[in-house]
Amino acid sequence: MADCEPAPVAGIRLAAVSAGIKTSGRLDLVLFELAPACAVAATFTRNAFCAAPVQVARENLQATTPRYLLINTGNANAGTGDEGIAAARACCQALAGRVGLESAAVLPFSTGVIGEHLPVELIEAALPAALEGLSADNWSQAAAGILTTDTRPKGASRELEIDGKPVMVTGIAKGAGMIRPNMATMLAFVATDAAVEETLLQSLWGEIVEHSFNRVTVDGDTSTNDAAIVIATGLAGNAVIDSCEHRDYPVLRDALQSLTLALAQALVRDGEGASKFVAIEVCEGGSEAECLEIAYTIAHSPLVKTALFAGDPNWGRILAAIGRAEVDDLEVNRIQLRINGVLIAEGGCRADSYTEEQGVEAMRPGDITIEVRLQRGECRSTIWTSDLSYDYVRINAEYRS
Amino acid sequence: MADCEPAPVAGIRLAAVSAGIKTSGRLDLVLFELAPACAVAATFTRNAFCAAPVQVARENLQATTPRYLLINTGNANAGTGDEGIAAARACCQALAGRVGLESAAVLPFSTGVIGEHLPVELIEAALPAALEGLSADNWSQAAAGILTTDTRPKGASRELEIDGKPVMVTGIAKGAGMIRPNMATMLAFVATDAAVEETLLQSLWGEIVEHSFNRVTVDGDTSTNDAAIVIATGLAGNAVIDSCEHRDYPVLRDALQSLTLALAQALVRDGEGASKFVAIEVCEGGSEAECLEIAYTIAHSPLVKTALFAGDPNWGRILAAIGRAEVDDLEVNRIQLRINGVLIAEGGCRADSYTEEQGVEAMRPGDITIEVRLQRGECRSTIWTSDLSYDYVRINAEYRS
Repeated sequence: MADCEPAPVAGIRLAAVSAGIKTSGRLDLVLFELAPACAVAATFTRNAFCAAPVQVARENLQATTPRYLLINTGNANAGTGDEGIAAARACCQALAGRVGLESAAVLPFSTGVIGEHLPVELIEAALPAALEGLSADNWSQAAAGILTTDTRPKGASRELEIDGKPVMVTGIAKGAGMIRPNMATMLAFVATDAAVEETLLQSLWGEIVEHSFNRVTVDGDTSTNDAAIVIATGLAGNAVIDSCEHRDYPVLRDALQSLTLALAQALVRDGEGASKFVAIEVCEGGSEAECLEIAYTIAHSPLVKTALFAGDPNWGRILAAIGRAEVDDLEVNRIQLRINGVLIAEGGCRADSYTEEQGVEAMRPGDITIEVRLQRGECRSTIWTSDLSYDYVRINAEYRS
Repeated sequence: MADCEPAPVAGIRLAAVSAGIKTSGRLDLVLFELAPACAVAATFTRNAFCAAPVQVARENLQATTPRYLLINTGNANAGTGDEGIAAARACCQALAGRVGLESAAVLPFSTGVIGEHLPVELIEAALPAALEGLSADNWSQAAAGILTTDTRPKGASRELEIDGKPVMVTGIAKGAGMIRPNMATMLAFVATDAAVEETLLQSLWGEIVEHSFNRVTVDGDTSTNDAAIVIATGLAGNAVIDSCEHRDYPVLRDALQSLTLALAQALVRDGEGASKFVAIEVCEGGSEAECLEIAYTIAHSPLVKTALFAGDPNWGRILAAIGRAEVDDLEVNRIQLRINGVLIAEGGCRADSYTEEQGVEAMRPGDITIEVRLQRGECRSTIWTSDLSYDYVRINAEYRS
């Protein structure tokens, strides 16, 4: 788990069961039950081929306040056309019927193989056990139940005080491959018992996601199914946070940001075949956009990623990546490059002080920070990525996503 | 060799020697001697961290008509700052001094390790042998002498008739890794004995490169050293081709295009770790730019590339890549996807006629064509790429580029 076990949040009950979608018998169906009148905000993939559950969840969220989230793994229900939409709706309907709600009160989520029809009957058959199993203490099981090629569950919590009341923020996420911005992430579910006005929660969530899940990349691929959801149950009893001028807004924002960043970084650490965890910090840029452009060009360079895998301080490949980033009028001779604090290149070439031994030493740890100082402004951006290993190829050559 | 042995071109003599830059003792220094008054055109990398020889070659080409091209492998003289510029100039000066020309009459080119200082003394010491070895028949040796991680030399020729005279077009190229557009290629040297006016040759060459070397990608990385040069010696005796309205212009253009496309495709076939040769054809698009954007998004997707390596007809990954391409208002339900002629997906899902067996069969050959029909216009683009294999990771984790 990322930094701590996820703790219960008042107003949320969960269950994770095995519906038999995965032939392995592993947990593959997760149910969230939300207290009435929660505020819910969501960010979905921007992929034009978005999956059926993304389309249905977006519609249902518009229509009414969600009371259930129904998440399956083992099948993405993507690339399934109109039949896929019908399947996602059928699952919502089956659950809604059992609990006496309208269908739109259920938000569906799927992850797994693309292009296979969703086994609706397996999901329907597993609903009684899921409803039976609902408990406030099942966050860890839910974290396990949403995994695909991930090797370990990711969950975390933050405790804080708002308006004199103890407040909990808890989240779980899954990722592993197909991870990059634009929405961008995989599935993430975050809940707090703080009381937050829904419109504000949506704008806050957009900002939070932009600086957490949208700052990590494993392979540059954006999935058809990515979604990040935040729920505010309001049961902590604080005075409703209803504006970004509200005294308690920064406290909640910081807790959400810290939590989502921990989850996002945990996704990278568990990226497919990842053997290195790499922070790319681009600073002293003319704009945040150019810092990000350079950071992503480095992060997506297969040559840089294989050098990271090899522990090779191959700064030439990093300079070459910087040089091909789409940034106007880059003065390459002003750029300084550091790896784990060691100044490696400046003035367009290797730094005078640099030795190969320093570079090898700097590349040795599992955590690597690549710092690029542009010396042309005051903006900065940091993203997180992993290396490109034999295992990435093995996992993706063998797995049918 | 790509499709044939490269044949001599009147006015061009070549030599390839071992200067000891590569410790293996392989050929690593190639010299081109050009007849006086050739027309010469060039396209260089757009990488902001362009190598010292690129900067010097660009300057020298502005200053005077080239008489020699001096190409070394084993060291890219990139990321070497002002010292690198001085080293490139010193090599030009050393050669120019021996043959009694001004230094600017020599164009330098380098490829190999980035960030190491160029061993000028080794190159200088090898110049007598290179000058001694000049011969019109050394194209194959030159093709071998410019290689880095390539596994085989690439050269080809086209014979044509212009103005009643036999004309030859011959070229060699090297590539392997760090191959993608924006200039984009590696090193390519093409010569013809046709007489062509130099300004026209430059505009023609830009068009030719755009539709050949700028249409192939192995890993999305653009090198610091890429250059493509064309030389027209004029010794065939044809009336000078001096306008794109000239009767013989299309004949020459088609021969150059055919030759450069053969070389560019040979680069992909010999891409680092390549086990598949993949054409990505995007047609019926609203613009050529959107066709290219989609084609490159597919070509650079590590998930698509690993599926190609595995021979897995994983059309879901291809749809996901199309969906995240930066194209406005893509109507995904109109898109048809074919692999080697087999209709795989349409209407946002698997085609009714498609069977898994068809897909496996379609992915079996070494040559794969992925055809994406957008059904929203009349534009089209084709690019060529390779898969992502264990060997790509091995080569780039072990090789210090």
